Amino acid sequence: MANLYDQLPIALPDEVFTDLVRQDGVRIERIVSHGQATPDGVWYDQAEYEWVLLLAGAAGLMFDDGTPPLELAPGEHVLLAPHRRHRVSYTAPQTVWLAVWWSPQA
Amino acid sequence: MANLYDQLPIALPDEVFTDLVRQDGVRIERIVSHGQATPDGVWYDQAEYEWVLLLAGAAGLMFDDGTPPLELAPGEHVLLAPHRRHRVSYTAPQTVWLAVWWSPQA
Repeated sequence: MANLYDQLPIALPDEVFTDLVRQDGVRIERIVSHGQATPDGVWYDQAEYEWVLLLAGAAGLMFDDGTPPLELAPGEHVLLAPHRRHRVSYTAPQTVWLAVWWSPQA
Repeated sequence: MANLYDQLPIALPDEVFTDLVRQDGVRIERIVSHGQATPDGVWYDQAEYEWVLLLAGAAGLMFDDGTPPLELAPGEHVLLAPHRRHRVSYTAPQTVWLAVWWSPQA
């Protein structure tokens, strides 16, 4: 058993993605951000569901479907449907996310 | 968007289970415990995968397969395979769990 808060990097050029679980169609990942944002003009567009929970720090999420941006504090979470285009507008130092990914059912 | 830490009950006769997501075969749940434990002699035996992450408080997990009990602190997590019999031996006041459930693939 590992602790999700162990081995948090202090300063990072890039975000760090760590698989916690990869089992029977579900992937659970820890993401550590340290000020990174999605580059301007880039949108994530994914085939899977992604549920994200902010565990520490702070982050902004933007969408290109006209919905207002979200400012996430610890404990806040959002379900991103497949192909809902989004980007991370900012992250605070030592931001920790939990992300759960799975495929739409036929 | 809801905050997972909102509306934490102060004192509870029973654990409180709140679905955060139920979508395409995956269920994500918040569980709030306040000293409860699984009754003596009772074991959970589930057909699905369950991944649990302790977010606040403390809890003990026991297994009937000979593996040592786990004492969970915030940030610690464990994947419970289908039909791995387990019970909660104790919980601290204001214990918050995140649980993710999904089915084995054929």
